Amino acid sequence: MKIALYGYGNLARGIECAVLQNPDTELVGVFTRRDPSSVKTLTGVPVYSADSVLDFEDKIDVLVICGGSATDLPRMTPKLSEHFNVVDSFDTHASIPTHFDNVNAAAKESGHLALISAGWDPGMFSLNRLYASAILPEGADYTFWGRGVSQGHSDAIRRIEGVLDARQYTVPIEDAMQRVRAGSNPELTTREKHLRECYVVAAEGADKAKIENEIKTMPNYFADYDTTVTFISAEEMKANHSELPHGGSVIRTGVTGINREHTHVIEYSLKLDSNPEFTGSALLAFARAVSRKHAKGETGCITVFDIAPAELSPLSGKELRAHVL
Amino acid sequence: MKIALYGYGNLARGIECAVLQNPDTELVGVFTRRDPSSVKTLTGVPVYSADSVLDFEDKIDVLVICGGSATDLPRMTPKLSEHFNVVDSFDTHASIPTHFDNVNAAAKESGHLALISAGWDPGMFSLNRLYASAILPEGADYTFWGRGVSQGHSDAIRRIEGVLDARQYTVPIEDAMQRVRAGSNPELTTREKHLRECYVVAAEGADKAKIENEIKTMPNYFADYDTTVTFISAEEMKANHSELPHGGSVIRTGVTGINREHTHVIEYSLKLDSNPEFTGSALLAFARAVSRKHAKGETGCITVFDIAPAELSPLSGKELRAHVL
Repeated sequence: MKIALYGYGNLARGIECAVLQNPDTELVGVFTRRDPSSVKTLTGVPVYSADSVLDFEDKIDVLVICGGSATDLPRMTPKLSEHFNVVDSFDTHASIPTHFDNVNAAAKESGHLALISAGWDPGMFSLNRLYASAILPEGADYTFWGRGVSQGHSDAIRRIEGVLDARQYTVPIEDAMQRVRAGSNPELTTREKHLRECYVVAAEGADKAKIENEIKTMPNYFADYDTTVTFISAEEMKANHSELPHGGSVIRTGVTGINREHTHVIEYSLKLDSNPEFTGSALLAFARAVSRKHAKGETGCITVFDIAPAELSPLSGKELRAHVL
Repeated sequence: MKIALYGYGNLARGIECAVLQNPDTELVGVFTRRDPSSVKTLTGVPVYSADSVLDFEDKIDVLVICGGSATDLPRMTPKLSEHFNVVDSFDTHASIPTHFDNVNAAAKESGHLALISAGWDPGMFSLNRLYASAILPEGADYTFWGRGVSQGHSDAIRRIEGVLDARQYTVPIEDAMQRVRAGSNPELTTREKHLRECYVVAAEGADKAKIENEIKTMPNYFADYDTTVTFISAEEMKANHSELPHGGSVIRTGVTGINREHTHVIEYSLKLDSNPEFTGSALLAFARAVSRKHAKGETGCITVFDIAPAELSPLSGKELRAHVL
């Protein structure tokens, strides 16, 4: 299966590493909007200009689009699905229906297959929400994220005047998770579910009290949370906060029985040393399914919900039944 | 969707309860090998003789076969899939390939669709082993069961002379689970993963030391485990051990990165107050998928690996994308 990457940031490097672990996949190349000669890949795979991607129409089974959800993917995924089978990790939950319709129209028209919103949330977490609610229709879902680095929140802090660098950790509140696991079905506010821990490198002479206040009162990002701000040196940032760990849990509790007398707890948890490498590994498995489904004649837009699990695995149905079932 | 149950034990009652929670399903009837007039259902659904099941060929979308894996299902599932779409929970892992082939031949020939080995293990645990290994190909899987009642082990104790009743709990060893979660990829013996806790009601005058020794040295069932045996009264058995809780965890740890420098832990856990009710709820969701897939023209034998998750849910693709993805 011939894979190519459109964009070359952390996520793309994660996929590049995953290709080394999946012998049925091959990385044809990386397409960048930067000057290709300025980009050096981890494994020496060739780098091409994004402008030349259409020259590769017949050389790629699946193009994985590694762009941002805010402005890149809503434009790139429909456009590229006119020419390629594609996978993206579009994660703006509220805009998924619109993105789906746009990509579906383009991919149907061109006869390609496009998978949007793959990864772990949306992605594996979504799958677990679906399975759990199909089995336990009377119940409630809870999703907790972290402990892990939120790049969006880190970027928001970096935009504050006087901030040189910042790293924001989303931290699930253990007490809330325990209440959920106990099956008590609690109503939890935003503040009761997660803390936000911020590590900030301030410019010399910057007003730290002002920075801290700007962070803590920032609407949408921090105002609804208990937030801690710790000022550290650039050296400490580099030494202790250069990795991108993440994770979280999807928990569903529900009842069964003639009198709803039995409670069940389903929990799916991830603890990831590297968010982009895990996400990249998931995208590669989903790309395998896209390639297979397109070979069977499927076109249009799909999500992780539409993929039979067997299609993700390099093993045959017979091997899966004998060793994994 | 019209469901019927072939067999009426704990699992069938679990499905009967689940039908009440799924408005798109309807329970047509229960088929029993006992005298139908001797069987009273929880919800008043009619009971028919197993001999009359063929009279219902056109009245049932999916027949769920609630028999034992040792002798019932290997015979029943191929036979009944000549006339019905069927679901079973065949759980003898080593015999799945043979069972699959037998059922596939019968169902293909008759134009029906049969799902075997649904439930939680095999079933949801299998799905999690598959997803996790597809994402993290370099890693190791661990499955822990319990704390929960093993009916097979309880039955084995009951066959010992002088035993009136018995309940066996499979207990995962917390220390082993912690070593796995820490990503140390340990090699674990059978004895290091689970304990077996036995509660036994002995007949008056029975030789308790002999019973305890027979349990602890029983090959396959207990000899390879650390086993505790506690003698209790019939009253205590009824008061404290009449429920059928179960659960467990599937954990995969794996590495990614150009130097395999990042470790990830994926864990799926179940904590179930009632094993048969949870299993029944899962079977009903899988029956929904069987009905839908057969309506699309699919025939033969499938497993949970072949079912796209969206097919399990009563929600439409559009609803799932908007609210669950």
